[in-house]
Amino acid sequence: MRMFKNDYSEGAAAEVLEALIATNAEQCVGYTEGDPHCEAARKLIRRACGRDDVAVEFAIGGTSTNLVCINGLLRDWEGVICTPDAHINVHETGAIAATGRSVLPTRDADGFLSPAEAERVWRFQQGAGRHMTRPAMVYISNTTELGGVWSRERFDALCDWAHERELKVFVDGARLGSALTSPAAEGLTLEHLASKADAFSIGGTKNGLLFGEAVVIADEGLREAFGYLIKERGGLMAKGRLLGAQFEAAFTADKNGELPYWRYARTANECAFRLRDGLIELGFEAYGEAPSNQQFFAFEPKVSKAFAEAVGSEVFQELEDGRLLTRFVCSWATTPSDVDELLAFAKTLR
Amino acid sequence: MRMFKNDYSEGAAAEVLEALIATNAEQCVGYTEGDPHCEAARKLIRRACGRDDVAVEFAIGGTSTNLVCINGLLRDWEGVICTPDAHINVHETGAIAATGRSVLPTRDADGFLSPAEAERVWRFQQGAGRHMTRPAMVYISNTTELGGVWSRERFDALCDWAHERELKVFVDGARLGSALTSPAAEGLTLEHLASKADAFSIGGTKNGLLFGEAVVIADEGLREAFGYLIKERGGLMAKGRLLGAQFEAAFTADKNGELPYWRYARTANECAFRLRDGLIELGFEAYGEAPSNQQFFAFEPKVSKAFAEAVGSEVFQELEDGRLLTRFVCSWATTPSDVDELLAFAKTLR
Amino acid sequence: MRMFKNDYSEGAAAEVLEALIATNAEQCVGYTEGDPHCEAARKLIRRACGRDDVAVEFAIGGTSTNLVCINGLLRDWEGVICTPDAHINVHETGAIAATGRSVLPTRDADGFLSPAEAERVWRFQQGAGRHMTRPAMVYISNTTELGGVWSRERFDALCDWAHERELKVFVDGARLGSALTSPAAEGLTLEHLASKADAFSIGGTKNGLLFGEAVVIADEGLREAFGYLIKERGGLMAKGRLLGAQFEAAFTADKNGELPYWRYARTANECAFRLRDGLIELGFEAYGEAPSNQQFFAFEPKVSKAFAEAVGSEVFQELEDGRLLTRFVCSWATTPSDVDELLAFAKTLR
Amino acid sequence: MRMFKNDYSEGAAAEVLEALIATNAEQCVGYTEGDPHCEAARKLIRRACGRDDVAVEFAIGGTSTNLVCINGLLRDWEGVICTPDAHINVHETGAIAATGRSVLPTRDADGFLSPAEAERVWRFQQGAGRHMTRPAMVYISNTTELGGVWSRERFDALCDWAHERELKVFVDGARLGSALTSPAAEGLTLEHLASKADAFSIGGTKNGLLFGEAVVIADEGLREAFGYLIKERGGLMAKGRLLGAQFEAAFTADKNGELPYWRYARTANECAFRLRDGLIELGFEAYGEAPSNQQFFAFEPKVSKAFAEAVGSEVFQELEDGRLLTRFVCSWATTPSDVDELLAFAKTLR
Repeated sequence: MRMFKNDYSEGAAAEVLEALIATNAEQCVGYTEGDPHCEAARKLIRRACGRDDVAVEFAIGGTSTNLVCINGLLRDWEGVICTPDAHINVHETGAIAATGRSVLPTRDADGFLSPAEAERVWRFQQGAGRHMTRPAMVYISNTTELGGVWSRERFDALCDWAHERELKVFVDGARLGSALTSPAAEGLTLEHLASKADAFSIGGTKNGLLFGEAVVIADEGLREAFGYLIKERGGLMAKGRLLGAQFEAAFTADKNGELPYWRYARTANECAFRLRDGLIELGFEAYGEAPSNQQFFAFEPKVSKAFAEAVGSEVFQELEDGRLLTRFVCSWATTPSDVDELLAFAKTLR
Repeated sequence: MRMFKNDYSEGAAAEVLEALIATNAEQCVGYTEGDPHCEAARKLIRRACGRDDVAVEFAIGGTSTNLVCINGLLRDWEGVICTPDAHINVHETGAIAATGRSVLPTRDADGFLSPAEAERVWRFQQGAGRHMTRPAMVYISNTTELGGVWSRERFDALCDWAHERELKVFVDGARLGSALTSPAAEGLTLEHLASKADAFSIGGTKNGLLFGEAVVIADEGLREAFGYLIKERGGLMAKGRLLGAQFEAAFTADKNGELPYWRYARTANECAFRLRDGLIELGFEAYGEAPSNQQFFAFEPKVSKAFAEAVGSEVFQELEDGRLLTRFVCSWATTPSDVDELLAFAKTLR
Repeated sequence: MRMFKNDYSEGAAAEVLEALIATNAEQCVGYTEGDPHCEAARKLIRRACGRDDVAVEFAIGGTSTNLVCINGLLRDWEGVICTPDAHINVHETGAIAATGRSVLPTRDADGFLSPAEAERVWRFQQGAGRHMTRPAMVYISNTTELGGVWSRERFDALCDWAHERELKVFVDGARLGSALTSPAAEGLTLEHLASKADAFSIGGTKNGLLFGEAVVIADEGLREAFGYLIKERGGLMAKGRLLGAQFEAAFTADKNGELPYWRYARTANECAFRLRDGLIELGFEAYGEAPSNQQFFAFEPKVSKAFAEAVGSEVFQELEDGRLLTRFVCSWATTPSDVDELLAFAKTLR
Repeated sequence: MRMFKNDYSEGAAAEVLEALIATNAEQCVGYTEGDPHCEAARKLIRRACGRDDVAVEFAIGGTSTNLVCINGLLRDWEGVICTPDAHINVHETGAIAATGRSVLPTRDADGFLSPAEAERVWRFQQGAGRHMTRPAMVYISNTTELGGVWSRERFDALCDWAHERELKVFVDGARLGSALTSPAAEGLTLEHLASKADAFSIGGTKNGLLFGEAVVIADEGLREAFGYLIKERGGLMAKGRLLGAQFEAAFTADKNGELPYWRYARTANECAFRLRDGLIELGFEAYGEAPSNQQFFAFEPKVSKAFAEAVGSEVFQELEDGRLLTRFVCSWATTPSDVDELLAFAKTLR
């Protein structure tokens, strides 16, 4: 049975793998510095963003992307406001502190950074001038840690709040494909994102690439900083063209005129929704609203364990009533019949 | 009228100032490295701690002390568990992150780090192995940010919890004098502290010295690290003997056989209790239990402002009902008649 | 004409690319944490090292490898002794300083760290106790920046010097394949290296892999630190199996019983020697002794420029007599006929 | 006999000590944030600098001053050009690396940073774009490590070189008093320094104060950064007024219309010149030109040891001929008769 453990279990989707094979014998300059594939990918991504005036850089993974961007957007004594469950606050082994910067978590419990909570933290940190870390940016991820999807309205409200206070907005798009192809995006498009965020990433690792994130940078300071910091922090690939070639493949329209990048994400989402609907129909209880490629269910420990053994689903958290919050993840590689097989198994657990 | 703004408003107490004057013309080796005053102070402090096997080092202030000790007790990927209102979490401009280490706040609301909350954070941080900051020490301050005083029982419970998990215990003693001379210490003595903590500071700046903290170090790793780190972080005084001479004066028994260090603290506490009792008698509402040299009251904004103008008291926080949590601080220099003058003024505000 | 610009111009060698394709559809656990390919590669590399008791970890590139290992081998106030031209001193944008550690260059002019110069620096740094960075390790690269190859005797002399002083030895093996298959290795084998170094890397990026370095760790402290630091510094790959699968392919004996890893390197070396001999025969002047896949020549500017345009060779340095030190690099992908084509071109420049 | 070990052996000069005593009972706001003494000192120092538009801040010592200023003037990937013997390169335990920034030493052998060597390093560091640390400032100290004094002409030449390349100029003035009152200053005044340097320190610790450095900041970025960084790095004094009161005393004209600060320095210099002339007359060999309060002599080991035991002189370095470079330091507290006593002793060593 296919695993539903995460969206980085498999290798690369067809177009991407083919591009790597096709370009394998080429000799290219290194370090993403001007090879034809990076240049082509930059052009394609700028076009998809509807902006010519942004820089497009590349990184090998999410933590590298986050730490370089946050390092570059903050000065030594500044901090980044985020939700308490933010990846940078919890799952990156103190990577932001390792660059000397501070993470300033709010109390938002649903994974979405709210202007109200951001305002509370922002005000609190003004309380003693230079004796406190100065908040200078907000970090959000789309999708959120709990699979939530930012709507255009919600995103605009946060950006407006931040920009009024001269805070930068950075969006961790490790699962941006899933987010923007979700019905819950409600008008939040790549173009719109690019028109408001100071920087954001377009995650490849979790959406069809072997590895790699593209970073779209509007902020002038970060445009200068990124190149130095990605090298200084050890994140610059010698064979940079590998990143370029993959994003070039994912952002080149297929014969139906669709970008493979969106197709991969849509596939993952659709399988996830099928899984969700199927499990609910079987009487299992979905947890929260996760209109994206991750689905969360509250299971009795015995059930959670059975799923874990069968399809690799992970326990995210123990709920107060003793049940286990269990996560299923679909990817570009998941198929409807994979889901149906899982549902058939699920039936045996009722 | 005397200010009650804080306990570092004045210069040095009599014995300390006299020692600085008396030793001014001496020529000493620098950097706390073997001058007679540092050596004498070390001996006196070790004696007061009842341990010969601890290192005694010196720093110029609290933030320097905290960052050097925490840096030295943690490896790059480790973190320190503390309360959310801990000085290191809130009031030191990200000094711990600036050394690359992470602060891991609990949800303790009363300023005391509880084993239960520490356990929750500790467990949470084990949830994803090396993907999360590893907790390796606890930080507490005595007195707490809200003027609380650790009892021996409470302290022992936390130490036991920490040491069972091989976490180090560091006590920020910026106001240790006030804490240990408080009736609320209930058996927590310097000797007892020294027998359990891996390192702690004995604050001088807020208790009679011009400036300076002594750092008592039992932990072997920190004993080696401290000397290098205090220099590397810019905290090593060229004229180290200034620190030695002051602590020597404060820890040399006076003609009554008492250490001036304890006398300074007792004076501050007694004035604070007089102030507290007097204000309560006048019908003002004390906030929380602060059996030390800081006293907190919940005032209407108008009253808070009047006190601020008259005696420099500071607003700590806005309470949910709109009242202002206002802090009065007494020091070694405060006198009962200073308090009575304040109380006379307070009477006019009823 | 084939470029001789560097050894990371091309993609992956045959076995490696095939392995990536063959494993593409597999679902594996992430982060190099137990997937079958990382486990197999670990086993193969341990066997090639002749040691069961070393840890084998993976990184995506040289700078990431260096900074994580040096960070993990040094405490905050310690430094690493190396030659002035060392990659970590010159070409990594301050990556070591960015982890808070210090680089302590000697005056060795030939790319080899000598015990005499290391001793001078080591003594100098003892001159003022904790007021100076304490040297705690040596960094060498094999091959050196100038294409030099460490002999067993030279390597042993440095290791002996270092270990007598309790300094760690780290070997940057970005081009280790070329070094160990060079005749100039004179008995320095992978087994021997593994028996003496506290940690070293086996470079894949420049020797047949798409990307990736294996890190062999004997040092106990670094074994614990590596996992945390590689994550904290953003160098941990989500699809860790990509690293495992590639090293598995490169270290699995081919039908002739040879490890492809050594074959790639030998190919590069042999082409480099053919190029060297050919250019010398044509009357060009080789610079220094570079018995590895990089070759250096001193050219008149006009000649250097002609080569640069034709085959991408790079100017390393301007010599005092105005000539340009020019580098040619061969890789696993270079063929004898590529070299002959270059030589035919070279003839036209005489 | 008076020690000639260093200029931070004694306490404070008369005016400074008196000011500390006189202000001891005052209650002041903390942290150098607006107390009357800091404000007065700022005004006096600005007046002495002939500029109203510079910020004047305070630090407790030289390392703290250097690391905060350099941290604040550089971005994460930038470096500071200095001589190899610069205090920041040798004697501060890697303090600059501990802030993540890089030190880029030239090969200047005489303690003076030359435009030619700075240019060489600057060019070298441009050689590989973002793969190398970008030089963004120069650090000099006046006096130099070897007691050298910058003339106006020499200073202007370096500043012109630096500013043409948009590099900042920072002057470590730990011994600025001695430098500017030396005949070798040849027109380099405080006003002139303030008109050209982006930031510089006015050392108090080594010139009559108990401790403390004033920092004069013209650079706008550093003006904003300093306040946060001095706190974040643990260098902000709670009783900031101690720094203010001392500089106020040292920069308030005495009855002869002279600033005590200059008088202290002149006293030290004059004693040093008397010592130098006397030793030369006795046939000892002076080393280099040190027209300031430090004097260097090349002695046979036996002689060096005899001086060390008698007056605490320190060995700076072993010379190639086996003699020991020995340093004598005079301070504001040294008197001509102290020098004569030393000379009488020296006579016995011939």
